[in-house]
Amino acid sequence: MKVRRSERLIDITNYLKARPHELVPLTFFAKKYQSAKSSISEDITIVKHAFLRNNIGLIQTLPGAGGGVLYTPGINQATANNYLLDLQQQLADPQRILPGGYLYLSDMLGNSAVLKKIGRLIATQYAKDNIDVVMTMATKGIPIAQSVASYLNVPFVIVRRESKITEGPTLSVHYASESAHHVEKMELSKRSLLVNSHVLAVDDFMKGGGTIKGMTNLIQEFESDLVGATVLVEAKDDGNPTFDHGATALFNVSGLEEAQPELQVNLGNYLEQVDFSLFETTNY
Amino acid sequence: MKVRRSERLIDITNYLKARPHELVPLTFFAKKYQSAKSSISEDITIVKHAFLRNNIGLIQTLPGAGGGVLYTPGINQATANNYLLDLQQQLADPQRILPGGYLYLSDMLGNSAVLKKIGRLIATQYAKDNIDVVMTMATKGIPIAQSVASYLNVPFVIVRRESKITEGPTLSVHYASESAHHVEKMELSKRSLLVNSHVLAVDDFMKGGGTIKGMTNLIQEFESDLVGATVLVEAKDDGNPTFDHGATALFNVSGLEEAQPELQVNLGNYLEQVDFSLFETTNY
Repeated sequence: MKVRRSERLIDITNYLKARPHELVPLTFFAKKYQSAKSSISEDITIVKHAFLRNNIGLIQTLPGAGGGVLYTPGINQATANNYLLDLQQQLADPQRILPGGYLYLSDMLGNSAVLKKIGRLIATQYAKDNIDVVMTMATKGIPIAQSVASYLNVPFVIVRRESKITEGPTLSVHYASESAHHVEKMELSKRSLLVNSHVLAVDDFMKGGGTIKGMTNLIQEFESDLVGATVLVEAKDDGNPTFDHGATALFNVSGLEEAQPELQVNLGNYLEQVDFSLFETTNY
Repeated sequence: MKVRRSERLIDITNYLKARPHELVPLTFFAKKYQSAKSSISEDITIVKHAFLRNNIGLIQTLPGAGGGVLYTPGINQATANNYLLDLQQQLADPQRILPGGYLYLSDMLGNSAVLKKIGRLIATQYAKDNIDVVMTMATKGIPIAQSVASYLNVPFVIVRRESKITEGPTLSVHYASESAHHVEKMELSKRSLLVNSHVLAVDDFMKGGGTIKGMTNLIQEFESDLVGATVLVEAKDDGNPTFDHGATALFNVSGLEEAQPELQVNLGNYLEQVDFSLFETTNY
């Protein structure tokens, strides 16, 4: 059955959104809708402009026999600013302060709308990078990894402090936990990461950077490469984000460790690290 | 700026898909696109038919002052069968067998496409129920909970065997782990669940049902109600799914515990528990 343009546009939107970073040949849509390739090309032009104007992401059409349509999720800087302001407001609630200089984040990390914002921010940062897999540390990094991985359309793997029987054989490294002031172990199932993988590390909370350094060592043990590391929140009591370890933080929090804790939530170095030009309508 | 129908259809698709189970007034779209309400009504009719024919879900238009458009994600039975066959094929790999009668599932639970299928299957089952929150047990249940929660548009909460400092005060219960043959503890952050919540419990693997029973007790401690419990895989060596505890299993696996394990993956009781009628095109 031939499908009308209005329905094609809805289905193409749905189809591409479910397959980021995946090249879809125009002939696939032409066959699916029993429509001429020229009509599908026109559809894609409409979808392309709508995606960009509505901050869904970039649609590219690659010509030739191996070509097709490619959807890259991402947001422009104005939208990133809005997301960051919204998240900052939620983070700045003083009731989040927990003993020992920690922050209660479980509500935000169990909220789909929050996770989509974090996922889109981080996926925008790495939109042009070649990433094979997202890595995180159990437990609270998992929702962030899952969200980022869905926008990058790659798998995610979970590093654990203590592996379970359900992981099979593991590789492990020890790392210095600066927040806990001792040496801990982290493990990853051997079959969950192939050698020569390009890995993006994400986590919810960074204090000293020990976990990220541990993941970096673990990635080396798997003969793979760390492409980048981004965390939601870095806790640093002088209020200055740590740039020297190469990680990106969406937010920097301070004032947690004082006798009378006074939560300060500032932007981290995210905006300085990200090139939004792919996703700005002014460029098209 | 007035927005053309073609772009409206793309943006409405994107907007509603991001907000399942949320009533959006027609006037919202009319204002957003500077279009007449009658044009928006026509848009919604087009979106409604396209969503149903393409197995995205149900669009309902509720009339009156408090009315609007409501998107309920869900799939028809034919699509559910396809999803189940695909997942069954992936599960049936004998290399998944681990010592002690366990299954390696981490690859599937770190794959966005797999998680979307599981999420849509479980969200279809509970599409008509009043659910406030999805609950799971750390660690491997988390990706399933996150996927289901995104389709139901509710938060998810994570129960842990051992709570961390980052959880704040917790409530705990003890439960008999039939697979581990001893009594264990599970904890949930006190502030993560309100009293009188309607809770859906999900998990990756069930063996004996101890974890689900434990979550049921924990939900009672929070003065809340268990609406349902669904797991990806139930392991039961006689091959007969356990129906008596009221849980739903997408799959039933057996043959794991023999001296020479021989993995058998069969459908669980999911299809018997689910009413797909909302999502069948034949009904419209």
